[in-house]
Amino acid sequence: MSLAANSHRAHNFSAGPGALPLEVLEQVQAELLDYQGTGVSVMEMSHRSAPFEEILNTAVADLRELMGLDEEWEVLFLQGGASHQFANIPMAFLNQGTAQYVVTGAWGEKAVESARIVSDVHGGRIDIAWTGKLEGFKTVPKREELGINEFVRYAHITPNETIQGVEFHHELDCRAPLIADMSSNILSRPMDLTQYSMIYAGAQKNMGPAGVTLVLIKKDLLKRTGDSLPPMFDYRVHAKNGSLYNTPPTFAIYVCGKVFQWLKGIGGLPEMERRNRRKAGRLYKVIDESNGFYKGHADRLSRSLMNVTFTLPSEELTKVFLAEAKAHGLMELKGHRSLGGCRASIYNAVPESSVEVLAAFMVSFASRHHA
Amino acid sequence: MSLAANSHRAHNFSAGPGALPLEVLEQVQAELLDYQGTGVSVMEMSHRSAPFEEILNTAVADLRELMGLDEEWEVLFLQGGASHQFANIPMAFLNQGTAQYVVTGAWGEKAVESARIVSDVHGGRIDIAWTGKLEGFKTVPKREELGINEFVRYAHITPNETIQGVEFHHELDCRAPLIADMSSNILSRPMDLTQYSMIYAGAQKNMGPAGVTLVLIKKDLLKRTGDSLPPMFDYRVHAKNGSLYNTPPTFAIYVCGKVFQWLKGIGGLPEMERRNRRKAGRLYKVIDESNGFYKGHADRLSRSLMNVTFTLPSEELTKVFLAEAKAHGLMELKGHRSLGGCRASIYNAVPESSVEVLAAFMVSFASRHHA
Repeated sequence: MSLAANSHRAHNFSAGPGALPLEVLEQVQAELLDYQGTGVSVMEMSHRSAPFEEILNTAVADLRELMGLDEEWEVLFLQGGASHQFANIPMAFLNQGTAQYVVTGAWGEKAVESARIVSDVHGGRIDIAWTGKLEGFKTVPKREELGINEFVRYAHITPNETIQGVEFHHELDCRAPLIADMSSNILSRPMDLTQYSMIYAGAQKNMGPAGVTLVLIKKDLLKRTGDSLPPMFDYRVHAKNGSLYNTPPTFAIYVCGKVFQWLKGIGGLPEMERRNRRKAGRLYKVIDESNGFYKGHADRLSRSLMNVTFTLPSEELTKVFLAEAKAHGLMELKGHRSLGGCRASIYNAVPESSVEVLAAFMVSFASRHHA
Repeated sequence: MSLAANSHRAHNFSAGPGALPLEVLEQVQAELLDYQGTGVSVMEMSHRSAPFEEILNTAVADLRELMGLDEEWEVLFLQGGASHQFANIPMAFLNQGTAQYVVTGAWGEKAVESARIVSDVHGGRIDIAWTGKLEGFKTVPKREELGINEFVRYAHITPNETIQGVEFHHELDCRAPLIADMSSNILSRPMDLTQYSMIYAGAQKNMGPAGVTLVLIKKDLLKRTGDSLPPMFDYRVHAKNGSLYNTPPTFAIYVCGKVFQWLKGIGGLPEMERRNRRKAGRLYKVIDESNGFYKGHADRLSRSLMNVTFTLPSEELTKVFLAEAKAHGLMELKGHRSLGGCRASIYNAVPESSVEVLAAFMVSFASRHHA
């Protein structure tokens, strides 16, 4: 008998750390005391041991296959989350020049905050190429609205904003090196990567446990790294050492590797996209057909496939909604404290069956409480 | 039936990530799919959820109890490992002044390397107060050999050097703020903390999985933080937010918390010290009674309780030793590539029974191969 048989599983709509595939957790559980006959847990393994090197190499190879990353791309597993990258990117690439930031939500704002501090100390300039702040971050700029100067050191975007639930669904017109914080929509669907020079993502939404950050970086951009960086902040050092310059977060990488295997098993990113579109479509349909009981935060064309943000007619009803949802085993539906309302994060690992339960609950709640 | 019954466990002497207590791994395994009835794994839990906050607060409280940390100390769980701290410390505290480094091995050298790069960019000066490099890092300075200027911004030491197996067994005479990289001997025995202003440690030797770094920092030192730091590098930001400024490595913190509970359960650091002294004593006795077959690297008074480093009469015999050891289930005894020879890392979680098996094997091997 497996331990799993004793467990119940909640419908988990957490914005991150978020749900993981049940199959992945079951494998991790089975191997926890003895990884494939080695006699040790992956947690207890030297990062320079043969079994861990295989775990790491397999994870990198599977990710390359899933995303279609050729040898121009370095694949790094680092620490610190996206927040660390907010500072590390300008330290490495601003080089007393100018960088342009496209701000479509709270995380883009944080990226600017750190970059400005770095530019104050090291020189250089951080420009806001576009911001949705005045409109309350409900949309992304249209392709023709956005002018990125092709001579800037880099441009920075946040393709999906977790808090506001706003996502880009078109490519940018950008000839500068484009850097993207994909923490909340990486691996959610096939993407055209030709426009990007660097992609980074904290693992805890679509990949694995918190504590590992995926950094994809093109060799062309690496060559533009500035001088005088401590080794931990120099992406070239991590690339040269294959993420083993210092001890990486080994167990978190191992779980990410299992998630990559799971993604391959279901049919890769094309199938993931189909599932994610069905899930998001189901919830937005409930919102749109609620006669205004539920109001979506994002404009229709900028709606996120990952984070469905909406409000109810009053704060009082919102509280009742969240309490009833919890009683139905529907967890973590409260909106971010900065925005209020509700948010259903429906990352890759949230099953369609959980979304179906939520949708049915929302319909029932609206019918009972609509004035 | 527990999954554990199907597992075999190796004798694991890895220098890090290293062994974890079997009881801890068994608990983690049992809770992996459903943490205490929440219906989710700890890996899938929001870092701002009530169950995770309890995990974090309990870990902090247990650590305070184990180490005797009063309210003058902030307890932070960060990312990046000791290597990140090597750069972050001078960024925060050098403030264009002078810092003195005591270098007793390879990790101290790495700390200096990063600090010098930071001082090149931001101003300030990194002095070597003492180094054992010319003698091959076999010893630590005597109390009277070491002159720390009381007016420097801070002094930095590495109380235990993992690669060379050299450990301090006495306090320093230091009136400057003293910062210690205790990655490899934290929680190994009770220590007088009055001399320290900051202690940091990667978790992967004595505390938990790789990917979380414990930072203990006194409020007095925090006040001396310099300006213009990105928030991720500002210890005050992490202290103010109780390690929740950004998503922390939640699962790694959870496992550390289990290890703290295990330590409390066995009788705390006094009992841990007794066990560690017996383990190290057993191996050093074999070395000392081998009539020169095994030679310890460190001078007797500077021998590490955590990393027992030794050589055999030839490289050829070393290879035979490692191969035979492996066949006996004795893993990861190879010395660091920079030093050669052998190393038995006997961190807190390595059981006395494993050390006994190793000691018996060493005696037998020497008797069979002594010229």
